[in-house]
Amino acid sequence: MVVKNQDFRPSDYKGDTMKQYPRPSHADFTYLEKYGVRASSGGGRSSARETIGRVAAGALCEHYLQLAHGIEIVAWVSSVGSIHHIPPTTEYPCTSHNPKFLQLLQAVTRETVDKTPVRCPDPEVAARMEHCIADFRDRQDSIGGTVTCVIRNLPTGLGEPVFSKLEATLAHGMLSIPATKGFEVGSGFEGTEIPGSAHNDMFIRNPDTDSDSKNGFAKPKLTTLTNNSGGIQGGITNGAPVFFRVAFKSPATIGLPQQTVTFEGESDGLLEAKGRHDPCVVPRAVPIVEAMASICIMDALLMQGGRRMATLAP
Amino acid sequence: MVVKNQDFRPSDYKGDTMKQYPRPSHADFTYLEKYGVRASSGGGRSSARETIGRVAAGALCEHYLQLAHGIEIVAWVSSVGSIHHIPPTTEYPCTSHNPKFLQLLQAVTRETVDKTPVRCPDPEVAARMEHCIADFRDRQDSIGGTVTCVIRNLPTGLGEPVFSKLEATLAHGMLSIPATKGFEVGSGFEGTEIPGSAHNDMFIRNPDTDSDSKNGFAKPKLTTLTNNSGGIQGGITNGAPVFFRVAFKSPATIGLPQQTVTFEGESDGLLEAKGRHDPCVVPRAVPIVEAMASICIMDALLMQGGRRMATLAP
Amino acid sequence: MVVKNQDFRPSDYKGDTMKQYPRPSHADFTYLEKYGVRASSGGGRSSARETIGRVAAGALCEHYLQLAHGIEIVAWVSSVGSIHHIPPTTEYPCTSHNPKFLQLLQAVTRETVDKTPVRCPDPEVAARMEHCIADFRDRQDSIGGTVTCVIRNLPTGLGEPVFSKLEATLAHGMLSIPATKGFEVGSGFEGTEIPGSAHNDMFIRNPDTDSDSKNGFAKPKLTTLTNNSGGIQGGITNGAPVFFRVAFKSPATIGLPQQTVTFEGESDGLLEAKGRHDPCVVPRAVPIVEAMASICIMDALLMQGGRRMATLAP
Amino acid sequence: MVVKNQDFRPSDYKGDTMKQYPRPSHADFTYLEKYGVRASSGGGRSSARETIGRVAAGALCEHYLQLAHGIEIVAWVSSVGSIHHIPPTTEYPCTSHNPKFLQLLQAVTRETVDKTPVRCPDPEVAARMEHCIADFRDRQDSIGGTVTCVIRNLPTGLGEPVFSKLEATLAHGMLSIPATKGFEVGSGFEGTEIPGSAHNDMFIRNPDTDSDSKNGFAKPKLTTLTNNSGGIQGGITNGAPVFFRVAFKSPATIGLPQQTVTFEGESDGLLEAKGRHDPCVVPRAVPIVEAMASICIMDALLMQGGRRMATLAP
Repeated sequence: MVVKNQDFRPSDYKGDTMKQYPRPSHADFTYLEKYGVRASSGGGRSSARETIGRVAAGALCEHYLQLAHGIEIVAWVSSVGSIHHIPPTTEYPCTSHNPKFLQLLQAVTRETVDKTPVRCPDPEVAARMEHCIADFRDRQDSIGGTVTCVIRNLPTGLGEPVFSKLEATLAHGMLSIPATKGFEVGSGFEGTEIPGSAHNDMFIRNPDTDSDSKNGFAKPKLTTLTNNSGGIQGGITNGAPVFFRVAFKSPATIGLPQQTVTFEGESDGLLEAKGRHDPCVVPRAVPIVEAMASICIMDALLMQGGRRMATLAP
Repeated sequence: MVVKNQDFRPSDYKGDTMKQYPRPSHADFTYLEKYGVRASSGGGRSSARETIGRVAAGALCEHYLQLAHGIEIVAWVSSVGSIHHIPPTTEYPCTSHNPKFLQLLQAVTRETVDKTPVRCPDPEVAARMEHCIADFRDRQDSIGGTVTCVIRNLPTGLGEPVFSKLEATLAHGMLSIPATKGFEVGSGFEGTEIPGSAHNDMFIRNPDTDSDSKNGFAKPKLTTLTNNSGGIQGGITNGAPVFFRVAFKSPATIGLPQQTVTFEGESDGLLEAKGRHDPCVVPRAVPIVEAMASICIMDALLMQGGRRMATLAP
Repeated sequence: MVVKNQDFRPSDYKGDTMKQYPRPSHADFTYLEKYGVRASSGGGRSSARETIGRVAAGALCEHYLQLAHGIEIVAWVSSVGSIHHIPPTTEYPCTSHNPKFLQLLQAVTRETVDKTPVRCPDPEVAARMEHCIADFRDRQDSIGGTVTCVIRNLPTGLGEPVFSKLEATLAHGMLSIPATKGFEVGSGFEGTEIPGSAHNDMFIRNPDTDSDSKNGFAKPKLTTLTNNSGGIQGGITNGAPVFFRVAFKSPATIGLPQQTVTFEGESDGLLEAKGRHDPCVVPRAVPIVEAMASICIMDALLMQGGRRMATLAP
Repeated sequence: MVVKNQDFRPSDYKGDTMKQYPRPSHADFTYLEKYGVRASSGGGRSSARETIGRVAAGALCEHYLQLAHGIEIVAWVSSVGSIHHIPPTTEYPCTSHNPKFLQLLQAVTRETVDKTPVRCPDPEVAARMEHCIADFRDRQDSIGGTVTCVIRNLPTGLGEPVFSKLEATLAHGMLSIPATKGFEVGSGFEGTEIPGSAHNDMFIRNPDTDSDSKNGFAKPKLTTLTNNSGGIQGGITNGAPVFFRVAFKSPATIGLPQQTVTFEGESDGLLEAKGRHDPCVVPRAVPIVEAMASICIMDALLMQGGRRMATLAP
C-alpha cells in the first residue's frame, strides 16, 4: 500500500508570518524554549506526521497479537464536539453500565467503523458528526472529540505491579499522541460518581474455560458479570475486554484570524493560517489509537511471557 | 514524624473467607492469574499501602523543586461522588475557562487544602463532601471522586518529544496509583467540545521577564492569556501553571454483602468485609498525587538539565 | 545463614586523617567532585559492602536457573599476582585450547572451589596463592588477581542483538563490581594472537539432542568441537559453556605510608591505613562474580522467554 | 561525505553452500536458535555493517564533546597478532607504568594514527603489522588484534555509582561491537600482578586549576602523579585521561577449507569462503571504538549535567 499525502503543500508553511509569530497552542514556542532553536514547517517532532512510525510498528504488533492469541483491537470515534455516540443517560449515568455500550464492546469491528468517513459505527450519529465537522470547517474553525478503543480476547495476567500497571502504560501511550488531553479506562470519570456496591464487578464461573488455550495462556476459571473495571484489576488484565477513551482537543491551526505576538514579544499581529488544515482530528486518530494500543499490549505480553517461563518450571 | 496506622487490625483479614473467595474488583484474582500464587492480607503490591514509598520519595523531590526553582505543587479534592467543587456551568461549560477555577489555580495552598479533613479548599463544599462520605460509610457502601493538582513556577522546556511528553509521563504516574480510572490535563474531556477559536491560548508578552532567573532557567519572553493547554504545549511546559485531574473509583471493599464464587469457580457465596475500610479514598489520595507529580517533574527537570549543559556551550 | 562481619571496627575509619586527605586510588576524591560532598567511612556506595545486595539477588536468580534449567554457575580464583592456576604455555599459548582448562570448565564445582580459603580448585596452587597473599599482608602491601567463571547448561538463544549481546551485559555487570579492571570472554586477549583457522569453533552434531527439553528450550542439533567463542557467537549463546575472566586490582588501602595532599591540595602528608584491610580481594570476589553472572543470565532468559511466546504461535 | 563500499559483491554470499551450512564462529547458528529463522547474506544484525549507525551517532557526540568541553578521543591499533606496539617489558611489566606509553596517551592524535593504513601511530611497527596481515591474507587465514583508546580533557564526576560506573558502561559499549573478546581499563590484566604500593595513584595539587572552566565544570584542585586507574576511580572520572584496550578476535570468515555440518547436523562437508574477506578487523575497528566511546561519554555527561542543575541551587 502506498500512502500519498496529496494535500501537502509546502508553500502553505512558508513566508515570514510563521517565522516571526509562534502559533497559538502549537509547539513553536515550547520547542524554542527547550532547544533554543526555531522549528519550521509545522513543528517537527510534535507534528502528528510523526505517528506514521507508530502505525507501522502497531500493524506488526497487531498482526502477531491476532495470529498468536486471537486478540482484537478496535477503536472508533465516540464523540465529535457535543455529539456523543452513546451519551450518559438518566437511566445509565455511567456508560459502562449501558447495555447498548456493552453490546458495542462485544460486537464492534473495524469494518463497521470504516463504513463512515468519520469512523463512528452508528451511521445516523456519524452523519451528524460529519455535518458538525463540515460546519466548523466552513467557519474556518475546528472542533475536538473522543476516541474509544476496545481490546478483546486478552490473556489474563498482563500488566506489571506498581509502576507499570496496564492502565498506566496505556495512558502513557495515549497521552503521547499529539493533541490528546485525557484518558479514562472502564467506568472512568463517570464511575467516580457510582457507589462501590454498583461499581464492583461480581465474579462468576467462566462458561468458556473448556476451550483450548493458546500458547500456554489457559482460559481463566472466573469471569465478571459486569465490567466497570475495564478488564483491568490491580493493574493486571482479568480476561474481560479492556476499553478506554481518549480526549482530543480541537486543532490549533484555524483559518480565523488570531491575535498573537512575535517570538520577541514585541509587536502584536493577526495570524491567519492558510493551507488545508484539519477541522477535527478524531477520525484520523482512530488508527493511531489502535496502533499505540497494539504496541502497549505487545510490550505487556513480552514481559508476562518472560515471567511465564518461570511458572513452567518443574 | 512517626506515622502510626492505629486502625490496622490484622485479624480483619484472617479467616477462611478471603482465602477461598476473590474479592470483587480487587487484585486477588488477577495476581493469582499472573503469578500462580494467592496473595493474602490485602493484595500486597496492589494495596495503596505501597504508596508510602512514593510519598517519601516525592517529599525529597518536592523539597528540591521548591528550594531550587520555587516550584509549588498543590492538590485537592475536586469532587466526591456527584458533589463537584467547581462544576461546569452553562456560562463556563469548560472549567478551564471559569474565572473562579483560574483564580483557584493561582491562589490555592496546601494550608487551605488541609483545613478540612476532606481536603477541599472550599469549606462549604467540603462540609457537603464530608456528609456524603459519612452517608456512604453508614450504608456500608463507598463512593469515588476526583483530585485536581496544580504545579506553579515551572521552568519552560520540561517534557521530552514524542514518547515522553510531560502529559504522558504525568498520566503514567497518576494511573499507576491504585484505584485510579482517568486522567485529564488542561481543558481535558470538557475541552473536546470547545471550538479551536475558543480553545487556543493567545500569546502575550510576559510581564514577568525582568525578574532574575534561577539556575540558568531564564523567565520566558512570552506567556499566554488563557491556559486551556494546562501549561503544556507539544508535550513541553510553556511556563504557565500545569494542572490536571485524576479520577478515583469508589473503594472495592464494602461492608454490604456481595455475591461471589470461590477461586475454583465452584460454589457461590456472600462476601462481607469486616474491619475498617475507607468509604472514599480521595482525601487520602491528595498527598499521593502531589508526590507522584513531584517525582515526574523531578525526572523531567533532570533530563532537561542534562540537555541544557549543551546550550551553555561556547 | 547469619553473616557477621566480626572484623569491622568503626574506629579504624575515624580521626582527622581521612577527613582531610583523599585516599589514593579510592573514590573519596571523585565522589567529592561528582556530588560536592565528602563521603566518610569508606566511600559509601563505592565500597564493596554494597555488593551484599547483589549476592542476595543473585542467590534467588541462581536458585531459579538451577531448578528450571539445570544451569550451573561456578567461579574460582584463577590467579593471585603472578601465580596463575593454568598459565599460558608454549604448547597452549591460548588457554582456551588447553585440555586441562577445558576439563576444568566441565568438572569444576563450588564444593571443590570452597575447599581452600583462597578459592582456587587446585590445592597446590591454592597453597602458593595463600602464601603470596600472606606475604603481601605482612609487608603491609596488597596484590591483585583474576576470577574465572563458567556457566554450564545454558539454553541457546540467550543474548540480544546489537547492544545487549550477552558478552556486553556480562562485561557491564562484571565491571560494575568494585576494584575490577578487565573482562575477557572465551579466548579473550590471548585469542587475538591466534589465526582464524585455529580459533574457529567447528560445528558437529550434538550427541545430546535426544534428552528431553526443559521449559520448551529444546537441546540444539549442533554443538562445537572447540570453544574459543566462550559459548557466545554473535552475542547469543550457542549451548556450549560460557566462560569469562575478570581482573581485580590490588586493594588501594594499605598499611604502608603513602604521600598525599589534602582535599584542598595545600599541604603534603603521609597516609597510613589502620585497621584490618584485605591484602587481596579475589577470594571474596568469587561469590560476587557468581551473583552478577546469575543476574545477567536471569535477565537474558526473561527477555528470550518473552520472545519465545511468539515462536510457539500457531 | 558519501561512503561507497566498492568491495561489496552480493554474489559472494549466494549459492547453496551457505544456506545449508552454518559458518563456524559466525552467528548463523545462534540466530537460527534464537529466532527460528535463518538469516542470509552475512548474518544481518550481527554483521559489523550494523556499526555504521554507531559511527554516525558517535560523530555527532564527538563534535559536541569537542566543542563544549575540548574532549579529545583517539583510538589506535595497539597490536596485530603477536606484534605489540608497546609490549610489556622486564622494566615495565605493567604498560601503564611505561613512560613511552604515558607519553603516547598525552600526544597521540588522529592525524598520526591515520598516517598508516593499519592505524598504528608508530610507522615502523605499523609496517610490521601490515606485513603480518598480508601474510595471513595470502595464506587465506586471518588474525586478531587489539585497539587502545584514550579520552583526554574529561570533566571530573562522570559515571554513576554502583551499576553504571564509567568502566562498566564503556565495557558494555565495547563488548557490543562485533568480534570483541575483551576489555581492560587502566592497568587492566597486567595491573593485577602489581602490588598496591606501586599501583596506587598518588594525589598531587593540580597545576592547571587556574585555567577557566567550561560549562560550569571547574578544573579539579587535585590530579594524580601516575594513572594506573585509567582516569576512573570508584566508577567516576578523576580528570586524568581515561584509557582502555579492546580485544578483537581473528575474523571467522577465511578462505581455508573448514569442516562443518549442515544445520540439520546430518552430512559433513567442507566450507570455503569466496569473496573478499577481511584478514584482520582492527584497523577498521578504530573509528568504531572511538564512536562508541563518544556515545558512552555523551551519556555520562548528560546524566551528570542533569545532576549538576541541583548543585547550582541557592
